[in-house]
This record gives sequence, structure tokens and C-alpha cells, in this order.
Amino acid sequence: MLTVNLVCVGNLKEKFSRDMAAEYEKRLSAFCKLNILELKEQNHLGDENLIVGKESEEILQHLKGFVVLCDVASKQLSSENFASHLADVSQRNSCITFVIGGSFGVNDKVKRAANEKISFSQMTFPHNLFRIMLLEQIYRAFTILNGKTYHK
Amino acid sequence: MLTVNLVCVGNLKEKFSRDMAAEYEKRLSAFCKLNILELKEQNHLGDENLIVGKESEEILQHLKGFVVLCDVASKQLSSENFASHLADVSQRNSCITFVIGGSFGVNDKVKRAANEKISFSQMTFPHNLFRIMLLEQIYRAFTILNGKTYHK
Repeated sequence: MLTVNLVCVGNLKEKFSRDMAAEYEKRLSAFCKLNILELKEQNHLGDENLIVGKESEEILQHLKGFVVLCDVASKQLSSENFASHLADVSQRNSCITFVIGGSFGVNDKVKRAANEKISFSQMTFPHNLFRIMLLEQIYRAFTILNGKTYHK
Repeated sequence: MLTVNLVCVGNLKEKFSRDMAAEYEKRLSAFCKLNILELKEQNHLGDENLIVGKESEEILQHLKGFVVLCDVASKQLSSENFASHLADVSQRNSCITFVIGGSFGVNDKVKRAANEKISFSQMTFPHNLFRIMLLEQIYRAFTILNGKTYHK
């Protein structure tokens, strides 16, 4: 079974976000072994470069398998293409790690360490909502690949 | 105060979706008069054309002011550009209506009735999550326009 890791900066503060994420985590458990790692936000450091540096350093310690960085400025895929891409990648890798950076993004080391970068939207979303969007798209991908009726 | 209408097909079934949407509705009340109209899904009609036709007919009865259709295949804007565009539109219109179609989309009558179409992503999201994404981006737009620190 494919291992899917999410490495995220920041936790889900509100109950509704945790519940909504938990719903997709539960559904995903039928298709993959999902691990979510929440790293601490470093906003207390004050300076943007320090925050990005420290958060990126932490992220780098947890990158395993094929690494996909979620990056607003990168290429976009349709849900169908994301699904077939996930299928391709999972044929060559038993583990995929998705990275969601903090409010100020990640540094070049993380960008270079990523096997690829994908964007979900030109718009910026808060990290709690983005995590749910990512979980939903991974779940949707598995349902597309397995011919389930969830998609549409 | 600007009136923002959301015309949606389908309701929010899960408590976490309702709670998350309610959070943004509450925050938006500081910036606009928000009305959310939930139209009934017509999936019981079985045939896709019948469903789209009936849902579109209902939508057409509720289009007021400047109409923005959310459509996956249309142009995308960054959050900043969405905000400045919203500011432009609201100078010429006291009411903006956003339309979120049902699972099978809307017909050409609705597309023609819309003043414009925008896309949030090449990916397809479920309607409950998409409604939250739209509410969040409208809220984000107001915070950008009002120089609040929410956006980054």
C-alpha cells in the first residue's frame, strides 16, 4: 500500500477544520497509509527570513520518497491529470511526501529537494483550508483511479 | 454596503462544512451584506441534461446585479487581482452575485447571463468545499482592500 506523507507547517486550530480533515483522512485510509506531520510555526522569530529558514530546516528533515512541494507559482493539473500523475509516481515510489509550507513559504533548499512542484490555484488559501483541499484532491485521485463515482 | 449574493446548488450536509462556512459568513458581515441562496439539487431527475436544465432554470431566477459564474474552465486570478477586481466591480454595482452550479454544471443560458466567469483552480472540488473556498477568497479580498493583516 502506498505511503502518503503530508508535511505541514502549523496545526489545525478550529474544530471544524480538524473534523473536515479527519473525514478525508478516514476516507483515504482505504487507499493509502497516510501520515500527517505538523511542524511548529516559527512566527515568534519575527523576521521573515528567520521564519522561512527555521521552518525549512525542519521540513528538510522529514522528506521521504517522492517529494511534491505545493507552490502557488507552479504548474497546475486538472483533478484527472493529478490522479494519473499520482498513479505514475506511485508505480516508481512506495512513498510520496507532500509539503505545505508556512505563511511565508519555504527556502530554496526545500525547493531543490522537491522532486516537483505543483500549484492548486493562483489564489492563496489559508493553511487549514489548503490542507483540506490537498487531502480532498488526493482522495479524489484515488476514487478516479479506482473508478468510483465520487468524482462528478 | 455592498450586497454579495451566493447562489448555490445543493446544501451543506456535514456540520463541519456548515461551521466552517459560518465562520467566513460571520467575518464577511463586517464588510458586506451577504445572502446565501441554496437551490435544490435535481439529481433525482436522473438524466444529466434534465438536471442541468432544471437547476439552471432555478439559478436564472435569482441573478441580480453583477453576475460572476464560478467555472473551472475560465480565467484565473491571484487573490490580489481578485480583490482589486472586486473593488472595481463594486464601484459600478451595489450588488454582486456569485453562482456555484451543481455537479453537472450549468447550461448556456446561465453562462450567457453571467457578466463574467472566473476559475479558482483547474481542479474540481466538491461543492461544500468550493463554497468555503469562495467565501474565504471574498473575505480575503476585503481584508486585502482594507489593509488588514489577514492576507500573509
